Amino acid sequence: MLTLSMQEFLDVLAGKSATPGGGSVAALNGALGAALVTMVCNLTIGKKKYAAAEADMQAIKAEAERLQAELAAMIAADSAAFDKVMAAFGLPRNTDAGKQTRSRAIQAALKEATIVPLNTARACAKVLTLCKPVAEKGNTNSLSDVGAGAQAAAAGLKSAALNVLINLGGLKDADFAARAEAELRDILAAHENLADEVYQLVKATM
Amino acid sequence: MLTLSMQEFLDVLAGKSATPGGGSVAALNGALGAALVTMVCNLTIGKKKYAAAEADMQAIKAEAERLQAELAAMIAADSAAFDKVMAAFGLPRNTDAGKQTRSRAIQAALKEATIVPLNTARACAKVLTLCKPVAEKGNTNSLSDVGAGAQAAAAGLKSAALNVLINLGGLKDADFAARAEAELRDILAAHENLADEVYQLVKATM
Repeated sequence: MLTLSMQEFLDVLAGKSATPGGGSVAALNGALGAALVTMVCNLTIGKKKYAAAEADMQAIKAEAERLQAELAAMIAADSAAFDKVMAAFGLPRNTDAGKQTRSRAIQAALKEATIVPLNTARACAKVLTLCKPVAEKGNTNSLSDVGAGAQAAAAGLKSAALNVLINLGGLKDADFAARAEAELRDILAAHENLADEVYQLVKATM
Repeated sequence: MLTLSMQEFLDVLAGKSATPGGGSVAALNGALGAALVTMVCNLTIGKKKYAAAEADMQAIKAEAERLQAELAAMIAADSAAFDKVMAAFGLPRNTDAGKQTRSRAIQAALKEATIVPLNTARACAKVLTLCKPVAEKGNTNSLSDVGAGAQAAAAGLKSAALNVLINLGGLKDADFAARAEAELRDILAAHENLADEVYQLVKATM
C-alpha cells in the first residue's frame, strides 16, 4: 500500500471497497504525526540557538523514526486484518463442521483485527507524547508543524480506538475483550488532552 | 506531490526541508476525511436497507468528491505558498529599492500563505459537516470509517488554523489580517465539537 501514489491511495480509499478504510487512515495519521516530529527535530538539531535541546531532539528523532516505520507498516496490516475477517465470514456454513471452522476463523480474525488497531493506538499515543517536548524546546519557526503532527497523531489514536471497539463487539473471548478494552481506555485517558495542550502551546506563541 | 508514493511522501515530510510540512498534512487530512465519507456513501448507495437515505448519500458523495479533489490540490499549493515566503525573505536588501521590493514580496507571499490554509480550513469544515448525516444514516457496518473521516477532517481544520495564525503574525495589512482571523474564529467555533459528536455517535452504536 505504501507504494501507491498519494492520489491512488485517496482514490482507492474513496472507492467501493471497505479496505483500505478508517483503520488504515488511523495508522497513516500516526505515521504523518511521527514524520512531522522528525522534521521539526531535523530543523532544530545542529542550530546554535537550540544547542541546549540537542540531545533531547536527537533522542526524540530516533524514537519518531522508529514509530513512523512501525505505523507505516500498519497501514497495510490493518486492511489485511479486516480482509481476513471478511474472508472468514464468507466461509461455508452448510455443515456443522463447516460452521465450527467458520466460527473459529471469524474469532481468530476478529482478534487480529483488534490487535492491529490497538497497536496503532499505542503507537499514535507515543507519537503524541513526543510532540509536547518538541513544541516546548524545538525550532520556534516550526511550531505549527509540530501542532499539526499532534493533531494527526490524536486523530490516529481516536480512529484506531473506534476500530478496536467495532471488532471487540463480535469477540467471544471475554477475557481478551476486557483486557483490550481496558488498555484502550487507559491509553485514551492518558493522552486525551495532549493534542489540545500542544495546540494551545503553539497558539500562545503566535 | 500527489504522484509521490505514500512512503516517499512520509520520507520527504520527515526530511530536513520545511516543505512539505504541517500545512500540506492539513490538506491531506481533509482529503482523507472526504475520501472516507465517499467510501461510506458508496457502501450505502444501492442497498435496500438504506433506500430511504439514497438521495442524501448521492448528494453527500458528490460534495465529498468535489472536496477531496479541492483538498488534494491544496497539499502541493500549501508547500508552494510557503516556498514563496521563504524565497521572498531571501531577496537582497542591500539597497533601499531592494528593501522595498523584498518587503512587498514578503507581504504578498504571506497573504497567499494565509489564504491557502484558510481555504483548507474552510474545506475541512465542509467535510466535517458531511460526516454527521453519514454517521446517522449511512451503512452501520462502516461507522468506524466515518468516525475516522471526522477525526481526519478535524485534524485538518485545526492544523490549517495554526498555519493561518502563524502567517497572520507577519502581515502589515491589518484589515486583511483581521478579516482572516475573524473568519477562522467563526469556522473553528462552528465546527469545534463536530468530530467529537460523530465519535460519540459511532461509539454509542458499538
